[in-house]
Amino acid sequence: MDEPLNLVLFSGTDDKLQAAAVLTAGAAALGKPVNIFLQYWALDAFTRAKIGRDHGLAPEAGDEGRKAVDALGKAVQATWAETMRQAKDLGEVDIQACSLSMDLLDIEAEALDPLVDGVEGVTAFYLNAGDGQIVFI
Amino acid sequence: MDEPLNLVLFSGTDDKLQAAAVLTAGAAALGKPVNIFLQYWALDAFTRAKIGRDHGLAPEAGDEGRKAVDALGKAVQATWAETMRQAKDLGEVDIQACSLSMDLLDIEAEALDPLVDGVEGVTAFYLNAGDGQIVFI
Amino acid sequence: MDEPLNLVLFSGTDDKLQAAAVLTAGAAALGKPVNIFLQYWALDAFTRAKIGRDHGLAPEAGDEGRKAVDALGKAVQATWAETMRQAKDLGEVDIQACSLSMDLLDIEAEALDPLVDGVEGVTAFYLNAGDGQIVFI
Repeated sequence: MDEPLNLVLFSGTDDKLQAAAVLTAGAAALGKPVNIFLQYWALDAFTRAKIGRDHGLAPEAGDEGRKAVDALGKAVQATWAETMRQAKDLGEVDIQACSLSMDLLDIEAEALDPLVDGVEGVTAFYLNAGDGQIVFI
Repeated sequence: MDEPLNLVLFSGTDDKLQAAAVLTAGAAALGKPVNIFLQYWALDAFTRAKIGRDHGLAPEAGDEGRKAVDALGKAVQATWAETMRQAKDLGEVDIQACSLSMDLLDIEAEALDPLVDGVEGVTAFYLNAGDGQIVFI
Repeated sequence: MDEPLNLVLFSGTDDKLQAAAVLTAGAAALGKPVNIFLQYWALDAFTRAKIGRDHGLAPEAGDEGRKAVDALGKAVQATWAETMRQAKDLGEVDIQACSLSMDLLDIEAEALDPLVDGVEGVTAFYLNAGDGQIVFI
């Protein structure tokens, strides 16, 4: 269990980011290091300006799914950003922005939420991933 | 090949579930154990009430994709639920519902299709996954 | 680093295919063999008739995402097909079409772009994957 878990986050909808946050927190709780690499719409969701916003759900959620998520959101469940913050307190979680996606979406490093630890290229991502699992979300 | 293949199923559209079922059946045929962890819309698709329904396709399928899938569905191809059932007959396939997603979507254990073997948390999922591949679909 | 990286490409939108191409090129640059298995809408995108077309973006991209991608496309960034071609020049990249998806979408081998090296079933995919990572995109 000492190889890191490596998550490539591509999607920026609240349901996929919450699924990613739960996988991150679970791994961190088991003492497994987690490397997160933010691309495209997930990167956009981790900017200061947008991290607190509603990012919508996957289209398949439909009205029924939307209602279920809203109902629980009002009750108890933490947002994905809160769950990510807790996971960072709990274990070794490193969040890096993909430099190519930064260029693509024209995002500057200062625009990223403090949850993001830095910016790196895909080569650095692979080198940090070592022999650990790579999961694309 | 004796480490399990671990599939986290998130999406509940028929095309992604069919892709997941094919990967499951292929692994089972090779004698590889498969652990499936159902989250969000995939979990919803595995309820007794919905497993037999049309779950739509990914939005990118478009009209042309829809027609291709319908044409083959009427001819020979098994549904994803049938392929999953065959995979369970063929090999060691364990399907677990994510307890957090059960809460989120307000689904009770009795509402799940008998294809689902139980309900577990993300920690149990990781412990069963061991050093095997984790694939998010 | 000598086990291959194994990408199952399912989605056929330009943003996901570009993310896949970047992961492929990065692995190839590090000397890691890459096996790509094309299913559903990704397979459709690799046909001669469609590889040069606009394949749209994930629905979550929205208007703002669309504009960002268009702006960069007009400037410098290579298309995903060009990046895949460069990755094949750079390293050991093998692209196979999933035989079941070929049947489903009624695509003949001659219709595939020359980037695709052949057609295989899921069992062959697993055997080539060995103990390497499997990533579903």
